[in-house]
Amino acid sequence: LGEKIVIAVDAMGGDNAPNEIIKGSVDSLENQNIEIILLGNEEIINKQLSLYAYDQNRIRVVNTSEVISTSETPTTAIKKKKDSSLVVGLNLVKQNEAHAFVSAGNTGAILAGATLIIGRLKGVERPTLATLIPNKKGISFLSDSGANVDTKPSHLVQFAKMGTIYMESVMNIKNPKVGLVNIGAEREKGNTLVKESYILLEQQDINFVGNVEATEIPYGEVDIIVCDGFVGNVILKHSEGFAKMMLEMIKAELMADSASKLGAILSKNAFKRVKKKFNADEIGGAPFLGLKSLVVKAHGSSNHQAIKSAINQCVNFVDADVINKISDKLSQSAVE
Amino acid sequence: LGEKIVIAVDAMGGDNAPNEIIKGSVDSLENQNIEIILLGNEEIINKQLSLYAYDQNRIRVVNTSEVISTSETPTTAIKKKKDSSLVVGLNLVKQNEAHAFVSAGNTGAILAGATLIIGRLKGVERPTLATLIPNKKGISFLSDSGANVDTKPSHLVQFAKMGTIYMESVMNIKNPKVGLVNIGAEREKGNTLVKESYILLEQQDINFVGNVEATEIPYGEVDIIVCDGFVGNVILKHSEGFAKMMLEMIKAELMADSASKLGAILSKNAFKRVKKKFNADEIGGAPFLGLKSLVVKAHGSSNHQAIKSAINQCVNFVDADVINKISDKLSQSAVE
Repeated sequence: LGEKIVIAVDAMGGDNAPNEIIKGSVDSLENQNIEIILLGNEEIINKQLSLYAYDQNRIRVVNTSEVISTSETPTTAIKKKKDSSLVVGLNLVKQNEAHAFVSAGNTGAILAGATLIIGRLKGVERPTLATLIPNKKGISFLSDSGANVDTKPSHLVQFAKMGTIYMESVMNIKNPKVGLVNIGAEREKGNTLVKESYILLEQQDINFVGNVEATEIPYGEVDIIVCDGFVGNVILKHSEGFAKMMLEMIKAELMADSASKLGAILSKNAFKRVKKKFNADEIGGAPFLGLKSLVVKAHGSSNHQAIKSAINQCVNFVDADVINKISDKLSQSAVE
Repeated sequence: LGEKIVIAVDAMGGDNAPNEIIKGSVDSLENQNIEIILLGNEEIINKQLSLYAYDQNRIRVVNTSEVISTSETPTTAIKKKKDSSLVVGLNLVKQNEAHAFVSAGNTGAILAGATLIIGRLKGVERPTLATLIPNKKGISFLSDSGANVDTKPSHLVQFAKMGTIYMESVMNIKNPKVGLVNIGAEREKGNTLVKESYILLEQQDINFVGNVEATEIPYGEVDIIVCDGFVGNVILKHSEGFAKMMLEMIKAELMADSASKLGAILSKNAFKRVKKKFNADEIGGAPFLGLKSLVVKAHGSSNHQAIKSAINQCVNFVDADVINKISDKLSQSAVE
């Protein structure tokens, strides 16, 4: 690998593949330190690329012939479809031909592939899918956000540690606050998992501030939201659905009387700003933390802007040396 | 018990006790079929009651001398504080002196008290706290919403059955749709609990429509949202926090430029309608289903309007004969 940051991008994964993925990759070249390897059907990709003016030395296309569908069992698909964009892309990262892999494809398949091909760092029990979610103040780190649905307390402890490293190194937040998602503020609240996790989290060298109730999450009361992947996925999807529904409901009510209709026209800029704050496209993808290399899951519905953000996020991640930092911290012992 | 519906109301529980509780109780007398028993410090209650004009034959005050604090262990507090408004109120229901008990106090204490004093219906494994939550179309029934945090698949099946009875009898929804909260639409998704529950739910005589992702919950895609109490409490509190935060954020952005400021004044009525839709005060309280009598948990921050709604909800519940219907359905076998 040379001086540039090389990102392998799965051109075939996601709802808007391949066109939006390709456009996002081209746009990401604005950052002069980036090189892209696009994986997928060469003919389709080249045809699409020919629509854009870009530095041809900085995008390479690698043809892949197989496609993993959402109905396949992830582990089986990974083993069988050696010439899929996912498997080829992960192998490029493994063989040090790329610094990172970005895909908007199936989460389960990416996780299975990344674990099998790239592998976990020593000391990491479970890699976590960490999503950055918008809140009133800015963003929070949500871990796990859907990769690990049956978890142990020691997993949550590791999510908290990896989150602390990520928020410190990549997001430049000093001494980030870690909160455990719970159904009450008191330490004795919750189910068996969180009660046991609370005790372990208190013993770690992190800024654990205790339980965080879901009421507080939209306010950004903590920087790192720790929970099992089932609860995290519910929080993530509920945020998306709720924000969308509320804006639709407000729009409908604004159209329901003539004064409000005029008001809506005048308030256009205010609503643009609100929508921008909830726009996941500008935040980037969700990194899998705990792997030997960087793998980023972009949202399934990613447009070119979201892909560009996900690629740019990889650069910050590589620059911040997050993987070595996680390795140093987690290799000591699973739970200190 | 005569022809009127008698509701025992805990005047001492909740953030706005006793004043708002007392005012809500007085207001509920608008319904000519209601009689109220107010439980708590007689002197304080009578002083407050003297501020209102109301039919004195329809409110009776029962003095209680003890108060259960939030820091006490529920089960111990129930056994020790026999003269608390909670214990006395539940005993009135048990002894058939009241049809229902309403409290805005501590959820854990109410559940513990209700289970110990009133008891579960035969065949019910776990009583469930069922909350009605607002959505784009109307309301959904969320069960469990925080009483049962470590649950088994058979519990979720019972929540689904009790929810079906409630939505049919009290809310007049024919063949209500039951959805299982999950992290994907496919049946093989999720953690061990939901995978096992899915299989059991399919075998029941209910309108089970499969998994519901959290994105769909705010849209009211299903009438009955089934999940364990940890996940349900997260959904409930996340809705509350998210709606509040979004309205605050929109307000702040509307004030940030002068055109939007004017727009906000013109759109006042639209925002009033939106707020009304998210106003939990008009929905009522959360019934515990699966008990031998009706116990309703009102929101801790209930104002008089919320208390009035909770009391009115009891009337519909008693009229609809929900307890006998649950008893008939659940006594057959835990899981059919």
